[in-house]
Amino acid sequence: MKIISRQEIYNGRIIKVVKDHVELQNGIKTVREAVFHKDAAAVVAVDENNEILLVTQYRYPIGRDMLELPAGLVDEGEEPLDAAKRELMEETGYRADKWKLLASIYASPGVHNEKIHIFSASNLKRVSDQKLDTDELLAFDKIPFDEALQMVNAGKITDAKTIIGILLFSAGK
Amino acid sequence: MKIISRQEIYNGRIIKVVKDHVELQNGIKTVREAVFHKDAAAVVAVDENNEILLVTQYRYPIGRDMLELPAGLVDEGEEPLDAAKRELMEETGYRADKWKLLASIYASPGVHNEKIHIFSASNLKRVSDQKLDTDELLAFDKIPFDEALQMVNAGKITDAKTIIGILLFSAGK
Repeated sequence: MKIISRQEIYNGRIIKVVKDHVELQNGIKTVREAVFHKDAAAVVAVDENNEILLVTQYRYPIGRDMLELPAGLVDEGEEPLDAAKRELMEETGYRADKWKLLASIYASPGVHNEKIHIFSASNLKRVSDQKLDTDELLAFDKIPFDEALQMVNAGKITDAKTIIGILLFSAGK
Repeated sequence: MKIISRQEIYNGRIIKVVKDHVELQNGIKTVREAVFHKDAAAVVAVDENNEILLVTQYRYPIGRDMLELPAGLVDEGEEPLDAAKRELMEETGYRADKWKLLASIYASPGVHNEKIHIFSASNLKRVSDQKLDTDELLAFDKIPFDEALQMVNAGKITDAKTIIGILLFSAGK
């Protein structure tokens, strides 16, 4: 695929949007829209009682609260694992000693380049309070991991990264 | 959360982008960016030999080919199940007699409202050739379902909806 021209639509706080005129391998000329987004990191943090840390926050594009893994954007120059550790600490006040990459996934590759690195974290210890940004309103809870897995299977957890993290952790990855 | 003002940034072919000034429950005024996108439907189609239909296509925002479930956007006024049947037919030429909703998920709820309905389909029958749009270049393959599951666990399938569909189907949902 060849880019003929690029129109930069928007360069915002979290996303950049472009509209490109392209030529496909078959010679057809068409338009491709793309949303560029920083990578993200998410954490399946499970403690010694087999309870998982989950956060609830209002998700603006959806218009309601969602139950999700602790997660956030990877800063410029930051390693995904460091972002995962930072976000777990900021959103829950927990530190973990044992980390493992479960998967790196693309949320919506048709239009959006967001890649989410999902880690498991264990040997948890609460070391501080939440340290949220002033415009971040977020509650966290610990629930039995088996209950979270049942919520996935019952369609009560609907966030893609959270479903994937819980299913992969459950499969012993 | 209260919207103070909305700036419509872009109203395109697949996405609409807005930048809103909002007031949070704690009184803080801030900005929220949102990408609005039609819902999508995806299909875990597995035949009587336990082989799954997967498609490969170039994903523009990512810049490379991705292996994914057959999927596409739900048209205005269309039911998600009808979109799933239509996309399976268009992308592979297969029809299925038995359909079941596995999950409805949000791909990236922090910025993007896309909801993806993932169905399983069985009793497959090839009834026609692919019927793609002129700007759609897409190959399909049948591979053993167990191989697809191994590819998920090995991190070789990285599309979120595809991982979720394969893991839920594998769990006997």
